[in-house]
Amino acid sequence: MKHEHLLAQMKNRMPEKRFIHTKGVAETAITLAKMYGEDYEKAEIAGILHDSVKYANQEWLRSIIVSEKMNPLLLNFNHELWHAPVGSYVARTEFQISDQDILQAIEFHTTGRAGMSKLEKIIYVSDMIEPSRKFSGVELLREIAKVDLEEAMTSCIKHSISFLIEKKQPVFPDSFHCYNDMIQQRGTVKE
Amino acid sequence: MKHEHLLAQMKNRMPEKRFIHTKGVAETAITLAKMYGEDYEKAEIAGILHDSVKYANQEWLRSIIVSEKMNPLLLNFNHELWHAPVGSYVARTEFQISDQDILQAIEFHTTGRAGMSKLEKIIYVSDMIEPSRKFSGVELLREIAKVDLEEAMTSCIKHSISFLIEKKQPVFPDSFHCYNDMIQQRGTVKE
Repeated sequence: MKHEHLLAQMKNRMPEKRFIHTKGVAETAITLAKMYGEDYEKAEIAGILHDSVKYANQEWLRSIIVSEKMNPLLLNFNHELWHAPVGSYVARTEFQISDQDILQAIEFHTTGRAGMSKLEKIIYVSDMIEPSRKFSGVELLREIAKVDLEEAMTSCIKHSISFLIEKKQPVFPDSFHCYNDMIQQRGTVKE
Repeated sequence: MKHEHLLAQMKNRMPEKRFIHTKGVAETAITLAKMYGEDYEKAEIAGILHDSVKYANQEWLRSIIVSEKMNPLLLNFNHELWHAPVGSYVARTEFQISDQDILQAIEFHTTGRAGMSKLEKIIYVSDMIEPSRKFSGVELLREIAKVDLEEAMTSCIKHSISFLIEKKQPVFPDSFHCYNDMIQQRGTVKE
């Protein structure tokens, strides 16, 4: 990887297990970027930084959402969602990332959204399938990701929403819009 | 039932199987209305009329959605959804139903929505659990409906969305909002 210096900075911000995950996401994102014709340095940077504030203080995360005028709906949903948009803010302000696509890949890596870019899909999928992930169905997702990024993104968002619904947990609207967008692009519905 | 004359008018508008379903929905809705303290005549009328245009011409359904300025998003989704809002329009114009709660129970019986009334929930649940329905899990839904309308509505919308996601079909946004609304009312998320 070219951005080991960035990766090194993640080490003190998260437990060992999450650091291994972070490295896995960056490596998987590089692989997918090369496979699907995306800029793999962008993929690496977004992968490294995507969870930078995963273990930040919850009240601080909330304060940034408020002060930066992020989507206020976030505050009505599980705080697990907050590290993604605030992570994007930190990437921009602390790590001086100015590339909008990288920033959005970090911002939407947890919820997805309608109209995701190729890089956003790569990070979303990489976050779910990197080698240290262990859940029922992950092997199939990895296989799909090797052959079709769109299909992989569709299967990943489907998996995420099904998982939440199974647990009777609320689903952030962006995830629903992402799901419908992916399904509708597959041409199963008339536009 | 008090409104046999209305029920009789449904007979020529749908195949026998759907007529049996219609009668089943009306009877189930009456039972649930008595059980949960809702006006059971309203429940009967909404049950009888809920599928009145289920077999109407698709282009005519579309034309009513356009001319009555209904949610234009409906036209981007499966035409199976159209009979609900148009059925509400027909209930009002052809069957002279003026009660807003009955009209909305018909309008949202397929998608659900956030902020459903008790009558709307009764019709949505009755439509899924009436005696002629046969699908895996329907018995459990019937048991839940006997003891807790809110829980039954939550389980029914969960079942509907899961079914669509499993088939990789798009989900109308009202259904997602309905799901989140039901889940959030259960207090699993901070408001």
